[in-house]
Amino acid sequence: MAIVLAGGAVLTVNAADEFLPAADIRIEGARIAAIGAAGTLAQPADQVIDASEALVTPGLVNVHTHAATAFFRGLADDRPRSFWEGYAVPGQETFTLDHYKTSVRAACSEFLLNGITCIADRLGDMQHIAPVVEQTGIRAVVGHTITDNRVPADWRTVEGLLERYGTDPRARVSAGIAPHALDTCSDALLKECARRAERTGARVFIHVAQSEPEVAAVQARGHAGALACLAASGLATANTVAAHALYLSEAEIDAWPTYGIPIAHCPASNLKIEARTLPLARLAGRVPIGLGTDWTVTNNSMDLLAEARLAALVGKMRADDPTVLGVRQMMRMLTIDGARVLGIERQTGSIEPGKHADLAIFDLARLEANPAHDLASNLIYSISPRSVRDVMVDGELLVRNGKLVRDDEAILARASRHLGAAG
Amino acid sequence: MAIVLAGGAVLTVNAADEFLPAADIRIEGARIAAIGAAGTLAQPADQVIDASEALVTPGLVNVHTHAATAFFRGLADDRPRSFWEGYAVPGQETFTLDHYKTSVRAACSEFLLNGITCIADRLGDMQHIAPVVEQTGIRAVVGHTITDNRVPADWRTVEGLLERYGTDPRARVSAGIAPHALDTCSDALLKECARRAERTGARVFIHVAQSEPEVAAVQARGHAGALACLAASGLATANTVAAHALYLSEAEIDAWPTYGIPIAHCPASNLKIEARTLPLARLAGRVPIGLGTDWTVTNNSMDLLAEARLAALVGKMRADDPTVLGVRQMMRMLTIDGARVLGIERQTGSIEPGKHADLAIFDLARLEANPAHDLASNLIYSISPRSVRDVMVDGELLVRNGKLVRDDEAILARASRHLGAAG
Repeated sequence: MAIVLAGGAVLTVNAADEFLPAADIRIEGARIAAIGAAGTLAQPADQVIDASEALVTPGLVNVHTHAATAFFRGLADDRPRSFWEGYAVPGQETFTLDHYKTSVRAACSEFLLNGITCIADRLGDMQHIAPVVEQTGIRAVVGHTITDNRVPADWRTVEGLLERYGTDPRARVSAGIAPHALDTCSDALLKECARRAERTGARVFIHVAQSEPEVAAVQARGHAGALACLAASGLATANTVAAHALYLSEAEIDAWPTYGIPIAHCPASNLKIEARTLPLARLAGRVPIGLGTDWTVTNNSMDLLAEARLAALVGKMRADDPTVLGVRQMMRMLTIDGARVLGIERQTGSIEPGKHADLAIFDLARLEANPAHDLASNLIYSISPRSVRDVMVDGELLVRNGKLVRDDEAILARASRHLGAAG
Repeated sequence: MAIVLAGGAVLTVNAADEFLPAADIRIEGARIAAIGAAGTLAQPADQVIDASEALVTPGLVNVHTHAATAFFRGLADDRPRSFWEGYAVPGQETFTLDHYKTSVRAACSEFLLNGITCIADRLGDMQHIAPVVEQTGIRAVVGHTITDNRVPADWRTVEGLLERYGTDPRARVSAGIAPHALDTCSDALLKECARRAERTGARVFIHVAQSEPEVAAVQARGHAGALACLAASGLATANTVAAHALYLSEAEIDAWPTYGIPIAHCPASNLKIEARTLPLARLAGRVPIGLGTDWTVTNNSMDLLAEARLAALVGKMRADDPTVLGVRQMMRMLTIDGARVLGIERQTGSIEPGKHADLAIFDLARLEANPAHDLASNLIYSISPRSVRDVMVDGELLVRNGKLVRDDEAILARASRHLGAAG
């Protein structure tokens, strides 16, 4: 039995950015088997989902998350930059692994309810967190954060994750290598990450140039800046995902595309805690850039559509040009470019036969989605999570009519309500 | 029979910014009669609305809208600044009054669904538009846009509106005087607006310093800039609402608080079409500032929570300081400060006995509203229209469980889908 999404308006985000005003999408197992005219692809035994009042897009790809920290939301707003040295959250020492586990389940569910089908998630204790991510059904690349600034690097957990989840981009959950940041990892550790990435096929995920103290620490080690530090350790490659890249010099911004290092851009988090944004229009189209919601204490939203809107609006201001970062470019950043950042662009990020069926379906019977002059524009500029109707990963419905399939939102919300410091 | 909202978490936004974790609100007719401990205010004949899983806030006040243009959404994205001279929209000449009427009904409904209970709305043909605004039940100050740059000012329509709706701030719909902008109104017309405002008690609503050409035109008339032009015409007072105030010189920004002119700040619209923002942190707290979603072709969202988040984040960047524009300040900007901009702060904008019962009720069983460390923070930084449960104006429920009471969202959405150029 196949699933047929019938008669939807489809933003394929394929190479030609094709928009299909009314199409059927046939899904066999985890994959998209065919795309055709409305009313042509359903066979008698199929499960048909009416999408005639819906907009179908690739599932949104969130390239930088820390899902297990969802219960930190609201604990540290409007603080000075100095507050974030060490990124400690008030009361953090009292939180238990159970708190984090509840939190990650709630966060992945919230991501799904917001149309996000794929995350790149990282934190400590990922051996305990990844199985919970897996239970929610979301697609994920998971990384166990390692540092060696106070303790030796915990390679054992990294190896365990790589063994358990592998690095095959076709897997729903796969593993990466996740050194914490340039200032909390020694040059030796960064080099070791590059070597192990080469050996295992894992992608490297690291915070880069997120703060001035981080860059100062790197310079104290003799590097010209963040980019030189990455280059010296063999990490300035298309296999490294640099989160933030916020404190780059003009020279580094100019040189960055030569190395082709993908960027995880987290506009809300950057603005909230650093009052700063990267020059998105100068880098977009020259290196793969995806959008990330970052951790919940520094954003605090998990809404990737809001992130795209913010990236476009603030990016226009940074460029002093309202014509840059247009709707089509932002649409790709939310989907296929995000997948490219994660190295899974052959599996997800666009609606094409052969790709995994990771889809977001938006309700066009919502006022915010109308009129229909340009549905991509509506998605970037006006549609909110209120319009998310169905969400599917690997052909499996995880949200149906705005409700979680594997979980109950109200129960998760109640569990989350008094977690941690408020409990 | 009274309505009792029972047991909700209440952000009063009163002078002390009191937060009540579990309170009853008793509503008699259009007014809040009493606020008390949970379980203390309901009497046998009352209609009790369970708010024990909800956050109750003052209804959001949207201080600058053009609701009748909702059907322009998506018609003009990512255009150069020069595109907006004259603010014409592609295909505009083909649109009929019926288009605009459908559009305003859809827009007011969308505002309500987003928790907005009050708008300051302006456009031409307001004699036809205001009755539709009225039918939706939303609170509104309406203004008929006048200019004299090509035709004589249409005072007859303005007088008709003032006669029909009056200027009493207790009325659900009242009227203002709405000269278009500094460059499309002569000095003589601006002076006449000031005189008539004085005589009728009406508030003046005007676009100020929205673009460089506008400021250049004012300077060509011999004024130093926008502020000098307002001052010369007698409009630089606490009775004028200046929308945008985007192209002010440093000297004008410094002098602005001396005049106390309220500002309607429209961050998304400003960023989208001018790639620019006003220095919010320098002006906030010194003059009344409210938030506006502006018209839908230049935003394109009608989500005032998103506007508050954007104002805070971009305002931090503009100030180069992440500590400014904190959660409490933004909460006031969304509510009581918006009411102050409109001169109706005694009627609405906070939850206090004697005030009109204009309330937004958010569902705490949504993941985005949790955990409960700081519900005001959640409102500013993570809650989206998905969590709007009930909305009330003058004690009348206009949204209940996410659904319009007076209208049907799906029918309005369908009517709006193919309006105008897409039809």
